[in-house]
Amino acid sequence: MNKTTIPYKIYLDEQEMPKQWYNVRADMKKKPAPLLNPATLQPMTVEDLEAVFCTELAKQELDDTTAYFDIPEEIRNFYKMYRPSPLVRAYCLEEKLGTPAHIYYKFEGNNTSGSHKLNSAIAQAYYAKKQGLKGVTTETGAGQWGTALSMACSYFDLDCQVYMVKCSYEQKPFRREVMRTYGATVTPSPSMTTEIGRKINAEFPGTTGSLGCAISEAVEAETKQEGYRYVLGSVLAQVLLHQSVIGLETKTALDKYGVKADVIIGCAGGGSNLGGLISPFVGEMLRGENDYQIIAVEPASCPSLTRGKYAYDFCDTGKVTPLAKMYTLGSEFIPSANHAGGLRYHGMSSIVSELYDQGLLEARSVEQTEVFKAAEQFARVEGILPAPESSHAIKVAIDEALRCKETGEEKNIVFGLTGTGYFDMVAYQKYNDGEMGDYIPTDEELAKSLADLPQT
Amino acid sequence: MNKTTIPYKIYLDEQEMPKQWYNVRADMKKKPAPLLNPATLQPMTVEDLEAVFCTELAKQELDDTTAYFDIPEEIRNFYKMYRPSPLVRAYCLEEKLGTPAHIYYKFEGNNTSGSHKLNSAIAQAYYAKKQGLKGVTTETGAGQWGTALSMACSYFDLDCQVYMVKCSYEQKPFRREVMRTYGATVTPSPSMTTEIGRKINAEFPGTTGSLGCAISEAVEAETKQEGYRYVLGSVLAQVLLHQSVIGLETKTALDKYGVKADVIIGCAGGGSNLGGLISPFVGEMLRGENDYQIIAVEPASCPSLTRGKYAYDFCDTGKVTPLAKMYTLGSEFIPSANHAGGLRYHGMSSIVSELYDQGLLEARSVEQTEVFKAAEQFARVEGILPAPESSHAIKVAIDEALRCKETGEEKNIVFGLTGTGYFDMVAYQKYNDGEMGDYIPTDEELAKSLADLPQT
Repeated sequence: MNKTTIPYKIYLDEQEMPKQWYNVRADMKKKPAPLLNPATLQPMTVEDLEAVFCTELAKQELDDTTAYFDIPEEIRNFYKMYRPSPLVRAYCLEEKLGTPAHIYYKFEGNNTSGSHKLNSAIAQAYYAKKQGLKGVTTETGAGQWGTALSMACSYFDLDCQVYMVKCSYEQKPFRREVMRTYGATVTPSPSMTTEIGRKINAEFPGTTGSLGCAISEAVEAETKQEGYRYVLGSVLAQVLLHQSVIGLETKTALDKYGVKADVIIGCAGGGSNLGGLISPFVGEMLRGENDYQIIAVEPASCPSLTRGKYAYDFCDTGKVTPLAKMYTLGSEFIPSANHAGGLRYHGMSSIVSELYDQGLLEARSVEQTEVFKAAEQFARVEGILPAPESSHAIKVAIDEALRCKETGEEKNIVFGLTGTGYFDMVAYQKYNDGEMGDYIPTDEELAKSLADLPQT
Repeated sequence: MNKTTIPYKIYLDEQEMPKQWYNVRADMKKKPAPLLNPATLQPMTVEDLEAVFCTELAKQELDDTTAYFDIPEEIRNFYKMYRPSPLVRAYCLEEKLGTPAHIYYKFEGNNTSGSHKLNSAIAQAYYAKKQGLKGVTTETGAGQWGTALSMACSYFDLDCQVYMVKCSYEQKPFRREVMRTYGATVTPSPSMTTEIGRKINAEFPGTTGSLGCAISEAVEAETKQEGYRYVLGSVLAQVLLHQSVIGLETKTALDKYGVKADVIIGCAGGGSNLGGLISPFVGEMLRGENDYQIIAVEPASCPSLTRGKYAYDFCDTGKVTPLAKMYTLGSEFIPSANHAGGLRYHGMSSIVSELYDQGLLEARSVEQTEVFKAAEQFARVEGILPAPESSHAIKVAIDEALRCKETGEEKNIVFGLTGTGYFDMVAYQKYNDGEMGDYIPTDEELAKSLADLPQT
């Protein structure tokens, strides 16, 4: 296909939007290991999970054989408000780099939550509403997930209770106000509204909180209220299922213009964006229909795939959740305070972990000053100010494009631009002021956080 | 045309994007009054203007007979990075309101500058580059224009010097950091870098600045540096010309689906968005081809159209600019500190003013608590968190839709959603906390600020 026939932005028509989510587990011969009940070490059942999750979501979580799930019409209608998201041909970046490669990015930031998180938030809110629930509880760190969920709950008139890590609550007041504008209750965590919160506040006076503590509070709040369930924005198989809409749209858009992706790149924290983006492509690989080079990019300061251990571990720091087999740095691992963006989860989606273990994707870690340098370069030529998380993928996309410049290869490079950085200007300011540093955990630190993995 | 065939979002193809801007003055029998040299009271010439503005822009400013100007290819390529902007059918808002009206909005916020300002910023930067200039100077209040200009200058590798009103510089550090990320120099105004700045700092120690002062500093900085020109983001005829891309796209999108707009609504501060949105529609009215109800919406706290005087006045508070005939509250008018958003200009585009004077559009003023109420309602059902400025148009669009509910009329209501409110969360917080108030200037206050209009 002639280069000039590809527009700057490829938008699908509404009728071309996916009507089903794709469950990559169905095409995996060796499935991801099951979630285990930490008390019995037996695989979790729907009955176990539905005390915490909506029943339909619990079913999705455990179903590793159904390849396609219909997307309910109500969710498809909500998707139409901000989807299809554009697949952008980065002509200006290509020109700036002087690369023969063709660079495409799937931009998920064109909605008020500012990221792809809304794709799963609306699904989880829908099933909660359908089940007749009053509301949901969740935690949020940087605030993207909490924002997405508050938008989704507002749409379905559900109560939304967000436990926001205290330091974020104080340092990112604007994220908090967006959530409040959508009617959510936002509580700084640790709070005095839960037992675990009061306990932590008593033990560590003045603590600014952690994601692990916020999860514990959100789960406790769920169990203490009739008609509530707990929801989570990444890591889970159900979330990757919903996020497959990213990859499905990307593939349809590429197919429409006869473009075959060679390299597919995504940032990886809990794996929700990466897993969603790559699912349909990996499905083709698993079915022996096609081949792709897939690269997961993670921060050098939180290197679960590149330096973690593939083992069963708790999903949270408080050790109250089921055990998941995943690449993990240990549930007590907390990235250096120096680390600015998200992608700070100690583990990784079991699906992404298993695909990585099977050699279907490679992983790279990058340092944050390099990431912000790539972010700035991208912003200046492509216009969009990217989220720090997304910029991990930008960094490696640029690396790959420059490699093509050396070799002369006209590769098609596709990466996921998960969101915008409009609420991350404190980090950009640090970078602009030359005050951003890097931190790579030592082998000793990792050995320490990995020493305490649960026995299975 | 069947309602169900209209998608949630109408995107034009790239080849349907406008290749020319439309100059509504060409179709006006009675032209807007010319800019006057304040010293001689004679109409400004290109020679007068090109000391301050790029020559090509000075020509555009004074040309009231050429109907169409080709959009240079470089600008069209930049437009392709964030345009065409979607024309959205507000199905969810319609349903929420229970109105038979069909509501459409042209959404200009899908770019990092967060508003329509980029449409003119890139044009002005292009002509500066083409003229071989080193850079441009400008002022910014809330920061939307400064952000847009810094993005445009970065793209063309031009130096960008922004004088940012000191209180905004301090209260909106994130806007400032976006500009810095795009390589702009941002100076809090009044500064010690200009004569006028030093003078004002000496006279009013501790002052937090004003737009008028920042304009004066930016103009002085331009005159003191070889190879620089001053640029402005609203009010001017050249800006409305560039912003006609909004209206042209809107009209093409409506025509594509056989929809005839009945009511067209835009917020009005200096008039750049409103003028751009309505130009092609007003052109049809002027040529007797069609009829529309056009509504300009302004804040009750800064009511230039609804309570101002149609007279020659200075464009800035410092009284260094040419005189423009416009609806004005007097160049010394400053809206109450209570007023949260933009739309705080004392005057109004001469084109919009003349169209209003000829009865081609009507004007309404609205109070800000009502505006934020409409903003919240819109955000919750349509997903997008709107800028306070844009929300003035939302408020009146909702009013009109509810009027249709009473009368049963299936009107097509089109409004301009100029931008997002992601950098306006301080104002949203005030609203969320119930601390937002209203302020309407008294007749005495307006009489005072209007007492000192220049004699022409």
